[in-house]
Parts: sequence; C-alpha cells; structure tokens
Amino acid sequence: MRIVVKIGGSLMKEGVPGPLIKDVAELSPKHQLVLVHGGGDVVTDFATRLGKEQRFVVSPEGIRSRYTDRETADIYQMVMTGLLAKRLVLALGQAGLKGVSLSGADGSLLLGKRKARLVIVDERGRKVAIDGGFTGKVQKVNAQLLEVLLSQGYVPVVSPVAASEAGEPLNIDGDRAAATVAAGLHADAVIFATNVGGLQLDGSVVAHLTPAEAASKLPKIGFGMQKKVMAAVEAVEGGVREAVICSGTRESPLTRAMAHDSCTVISPA
Amino acid sequence: MRIVVKIGGSLMKEGVPGPLIKDVAELSPKHQLVLVHGGGDVVTDFATRLGKEQRFVVSPEGIRSRYTDRETADIYQMVMTGLLAKRLVLALGQAGLKGVSLSGADGSLLLGKRKARLVIVDERGRKVAIDGGFTGKVQKVNAQLLEVLLSQGYVPVVSPVAASEAGEPLNIDGDRAAATVAAGLHADAVIFATNVGGLQLDGSVVAHLTPAEAASKLPKIGFGMQKKVMAAVEAVEGGVREAVICSGTRESPLTRAMAHDSCTVISPA
Repeated sequence: MRIVVKIGGSLMKEGVPGPLIKDVAELSPKHQLVLVHGGGDVVTDFATRLGKEQRFVVSPEGIRSRYTDRETADIYQMVMTGLLAKRLVLALGQAGLKGVSLSGADGSLLLGKRKARLVIVDERGRKVAIDGGFTGKVQKVNAQLLEVLLSQGYVPVVSPVAASEAGEPLNIDGDRAAATVAAGLHADAVIFATNVGGLQLDGSVVAHLTPAEAASKLPKIGFGMQKKVMAAVEAVEGGVREAVICSGTRESPLTRAMAHDSCTVISPA
Repeated sequence: MRIVVKIGGSLMKEGVPGPLIKDVAELSPKHQLVLVHGGGDVVTDFATRLGKEQRFVVSPEGIRSRYTDRETADIYQMVMTGLLAKRLVLALGQAGLKGVSLSGADGSLLLGKRKARLVIVDERGRKVAIDGGFTGKVQKVNAQLLEVLLSQGYVPVVSPVAASEAGEPLNIDGDRAAATVAAGLHADAVIFATNVGGLQLDGSVVAHLTPAEAASKLPKIGFGMQKKVMAAVEAVEGGVREAVICSGTRESPLTRAMAHDSCTVISPA
C-alpha cells in the first residue's frame, strides 16, 4: 500500500515522535510511505527569537492563521525545511531508512498561487480585506519526484511549503498539503497522526464518517480537528480510499491506524 | 560532462548569483550539473540575531573555523538547508529547471564522523585541545541519490552538512564537500565559483598548476583561497579530471570556467 502520513505539529515540538518513526521502519519494507509534517509552534518560537513577532489573523469562519509577510515566509520555510524536516530525516537514518526531505520548491513538487487578499475579522469584529501575503493554495502537484524516490526505496518527507509562480516560498496548511500529496500520488490512505486519538463527539471517538457526514459535523468540531476533518474529506474526494485521524503518540501508531484501532476513519463506504 | 559547481559563500550573501543560475540553465540540457553552496556569513548573521554569538577558533596551521556546538549545528543546518539551498532551488525553478536541495542526511548522502578533539591556538598563542563539537569530516558519500536525480534531469543542490553516526547534523567545509561529491560522482570537473577570479600570485592569475605544484604554493596563499586550492587538489587526487577556480560573478561563469578563461586550473597534465 501507499500511505501518506501527516505528522501533526504537536508531535514535532520536542524532537521527533519516536514510536511513529519506529513504525515507519516496521512498515516501509512492505509499504510505500510519504511523511508530511507540521510544526507551526516551533516556527513561532524561532520567529520571536529573531525579533519577528508573529501575527495571527482570524477568518470570518473562525479559522486562525499565521499572517505571513515576506520575512515570515523565509523564517517559516527555514524552520520547517531546515530544522523540522531534517530532524525527521536524521531520525529515519538512525532507524535504518533513507529519508529525503523536500519542500514544494524541490522538483517543483508543490506549486501554489499567492492569495491576493485575505478577508479577516478585525479586533472590533468587522470583516476587512488585507493583502494576502505569502500564504497560498497548492494548484499543482508534480508527483514525479515522489514517484522516483518511492520506486528507489527512499522515504520522502514533505514540508508544508509551496513555491509561488514568482519563486517565493509560500506557507501552506500542512493538513491540506498531506491531502493534496495523497491525492496526487493516488495513495491508498492518508493518516493524520495527532496528539489526540481521533475525532471526539459527545465524549467518544467517532469510528467512521462518510465525507458528507463529516462535512455536516464540521460546525460541532473545534478548530484544530476541524482542519484535519476538512483535509480528510478533501483527500477522499480526491480519490484516496480512506483518511484516518489517529493518535501519533502511542506505540505502533500507523499499524494501529491502518487497523482502524480507536481512530476516526473517513471513507465513502 | 558531469560537473560539480561550488558556489562560494561570498556569492550567497545577497540572494543568489543570477549569471551563474542562468548559465546552469544554459548548460544543463547537455551536461549534468550538481551545485554545492556555502554561506557561513549568513549563518553567523542569523545566529547573532537568535542571540547565539558565534565563536571562531584558529588551528595551529592558521585555519579559522566556526566552533560548532549543538545549538550552532542546528542553526547552521537550518540556514544552510532551509534558507540558502531553497533560494537556489527557487531560482532554478524560475529558470525552468527542477532543483532538488539535499543535505548530507538526505538519502544518507554525506555521512561523517565528529572530530573528537580540535587543536586550536588560544588567545595567548598556546596550542590547546578542545572538544571537537559538531564539525566533522565526510567518511562516506552515497552517490546513489545524486545518480538517480541526475538520471531524471533534476539539478541537485547540496548543502555543506553531513549526518553523524548518531544522527546529528555536522558542519563540514563546503569546498571539501564539493571535492568529495565530485570524486564520489566521478565528475569530469569541479568548478569553484568565487568572488575573485582564480588564484593570484605575484599580481596575476595562475593559469595552471599540477596538484604537486599547488601543494607547494600553499604557504604563499591567503586563507580563503588556500582552502579552495586544497579542495581542488583533493578532488583531482580523487579522480576528477580537473578543478577550476574562477569568478562566479561575471556573465556565463561556468561556460567560461570550462573554457579556462581567466581561471586557475588544477589538473595532472
């Protein structure tokens, strides 16, 4: 099977998630794995240390995001690709695997377009349009580089950075990047490994949702999980057989995700 | 031909060297090119901004180098691979090429060993041995990933970072990294693109030296150029047909280096 694994930012704060890397080593002889990682909090820490205080904006739908000006885009790219992705590759190396870290610029993997404008809610609750800065949406996935690397036994590690048409780094959402990569690779599954164990509603983990059911639940879901559910729906609508939201901190997190053990599975059936 | 190009740190201070990137685009349909870059001054700037003042030490031979503790190793890796290498890849993308940036950890490309101890000259001129920190020498080049990328038409961009046996990033010298990669790839040539036009002795550029001649001239050469000449000799002794030290700032710098136009060529003949 071909599986894309999104490693949530919460798992990247303190080094790398050991049980998950160990599971990648267990699974990779039989399966093709691609890792996509987050890590926004680490970016914020470094930006603050560099004297570049980060600003966060909120959309009318309540989605909070980093306001990415040009300098922030460089810092974002630097920490994501030069620190966090390399930590994963170094850890994969220690586990006997050959990781290769990529941003969207490498091999033109993820080509995006800058958002011209962002509509945000200002401090008085009014909607205002501001310059979109260096965030974007992926418009094209060139999966060829991933295909080449997978065919040669490498484990690609993808950072949530796209390349703009003008050759700038763009901040893209990691969950949606994972969904886009999974769809572009015609993956069998995408696993969203988090620090919680799937989507909880009314006190228990929801075992299964169709994309339509998932979409209807969105208003009841908190922000971080909402983004994952939306990305899961995008992946399934893009042709991925199933999206699994699962704990990435327990032992054998990927093997258990594939077995649907205490996870939320989003799939058509 | 297969050519490894070292882009000197002096060319990386302000963005990327435009004429050089343009020349890569001119040459790459017919030749296989691998870029290796420097950029120590940019690392120092970021480290200072992060509140991590860099310390430099001097060997008994007069070679000045960054003292790389664990935190510095992370910053070094982050700036080299996450900022400078990505700038090159984004610029290659703008020139219609597909760059892929790699550190020594990616695909286990450059495996190194930490220096246990460094002998340095202290402020009173005495030789003292200190902990080697996170600098190292490359012990193994796994050229397979480069071979795969070159065979598929990608332009690899290699940062001067090795992976240690324990999975740590190591600061390695960029000129020697270029020599090592060139030898490991059985390259036809290695070009050291600098902000000066080759080795000057007695007021004019030396056109040609054998490795033995180059070694004999070392005491007469200033530090930055000395490192390049030593790396050139290493490359030629490692089987590379010729090493060329040349300006990287003029128009068509690589085409002119290959034509030996106002360059220093180090080769057996």
